[in-house]
Amino acid sequence: MTEPCCGHGLRLEGSVREDARRRLLSVKGHVEGILRMLEDETVYCVDILKQVKAVDGALSKVGTLILQSHLKHHVVTAHERGDEDRIVEELMEILKYR
Amino acid sequence: MTEPCCGHGLRLEGSVREDARRRLLSVKGHVEGILRMLEDETVYCVDILKQVKAVDGALSKVGTLILQSHLKHHVVTAHERGDEDRIVEELMEILKYR
Amino acid sequence: MTEPCCGHGLRLEGSVREDARRRLLSVKGHVEGILRMLEDETVYCVDILKQVKAVDGALSKVGTLILQSHLKHHVVTAHERGDEDRIVEELMEILKYR
Amino acid sequence: MTEPCCGHGLRLEGSVREDARRRLLSVKGHVEGILRMLEDETVYCVDILKQVKAVDGALSKVGTLILQSHLKHHVVTAHERGDEDRIVEELMEILKYR
Repeated sequence: MTEPCCGHGLRLEGSVREDARRRLLSVKGHVEGILRMLEDETVYCVDILKQVKAVDGALSKVGTLILQSHLKHHVVTAHERGDEDRIVEELMEILKYR
Repeated sequence: MTEPCCGHGLRLEGSVREDARRRLLSVKGHVEGILRMLEDETVYCVDILKQVKAVDGALSKVGTLILQSHLKHHVVTAHERGDEDRIVEELMEILKYR
Repeated sequence: MTEPCCGHGLRLEGSVREDARRRLLSVKGHVEGILRMLEDETVYCVDILKQVKAVDGALSKVGTLILQSHLKHHVVTAHERGDEDRIVEELMEILKYR
Repeated sequence: MTEPCCGHGLRLEGSVREDARRRLLSVKGHVEGILRMLEDETVYCVDILKQVKAVDGALSKVGTLILQSHLKHHVVTAHERGDEDRIVEELMEILKYR
C-alpha cells in the first residue's frame, strides 16, 4: 500500500525513524516552552538565547542520527545501485554550512 | 506587577519578542510537518534532513535577531551599568560553537 | 614504489590533491598576512576577526572539496569493498560539529 | 609614532595580540604540515580532513579569544563612546554563520 517515495525506494530505517520522532516531539515541546517564556514581557534575551541554542543542539542530534543511518544504509551502497551521482550531490547540499 | 527577572531588569525588547514569537510559531509548525512526514514509513532520509536543516536555519534566524537586540540594548551599555563581566561571560557561553 | 598508506589503498584523487595544495598555499599566505597585521600594535580586533573568518571560509572550502571527492570515490563503494563500518565511523567523526 | 587605525583608536589588547600571534604561528606550521602530507600521492582523504578540521578548531580558538577581548574592551563601552551602531553592525557581520 505504501509506495516508495520518488521511485528510488530508499527509506529511512524504521528504528531511526521512531527515534527521530521521539526526539522531534521533544524539540516541539521545547519550542512551546520558549513560546511560553516569550509571553512574559520581562523575559531576558540571554535566557531565550540559551533555550534556542539547546533546541538547536537537539535538532542537530536528530540530523546526525538520520545522516548516520543514511550513510550506512544508502550511501555506502550507492555505486552498486548506480545512483552515486545523485546520492553525492544530495549529501553535499545537506552538508553545506552544516 | 511584572517583576524584572533575575534582578537585573534587562528585558528582551517588545518588538523583537513579538517577532521571535511569530518565528518560533512557524518553527513549531515546521517541526509538526516533519513529525507528519516521519509517520510515513517510506519517507526518505534526505527529505527529512532537508527539513531539519530548514528548521535549523529558521531557528538560527531567531537567535540572530535576539542576539542583535541584546547587543544593541544591553551589551553596549554594560560598562555604564557595571555588569560587563557577567554580560561578556554570558555572551561567550552562547557564542561557543554557534 | 609509493605504498598505499594504512593498507586500505584508498587515496585522495590526484586532481583534488593538487587543488587542495593550491588552496592551502593560499591559506598559508593569508595566515602570514594576519601575522603581519598582528605586528602592528594599533591593529583593530575586528580587522583581525574578519581575516580569521575569511581564512576559515577558505579552509572549509578545502574540506568540502576533499569530502566530496571522498564520498564519490570511496564512500559510495564501501559496501562493495566491505569496509563500510570503518568508512561511516570515520565520516561521522569528521562531520561532528562541522 | 604608531597612529591608531581608522581614526577610532580601538586596538586589540597587547597580551591577546601576542597570544593570537603565537597561535597563528602554530596554525601556519600546521598548514605547512598538511601541505607536506599532500605531496604524498598515496595520502588518504580522511587523514587530510582530520588535519583540516584540527586547523579549523585552532583558528576558531583564535577568533574566540579576540572576540572575547573585543567584547570586554570595546563593545561594553560602545554606548559611552557613542559608536554603538558601528560596533553592533560590525559584530553581527562577523557572527553571521560563525
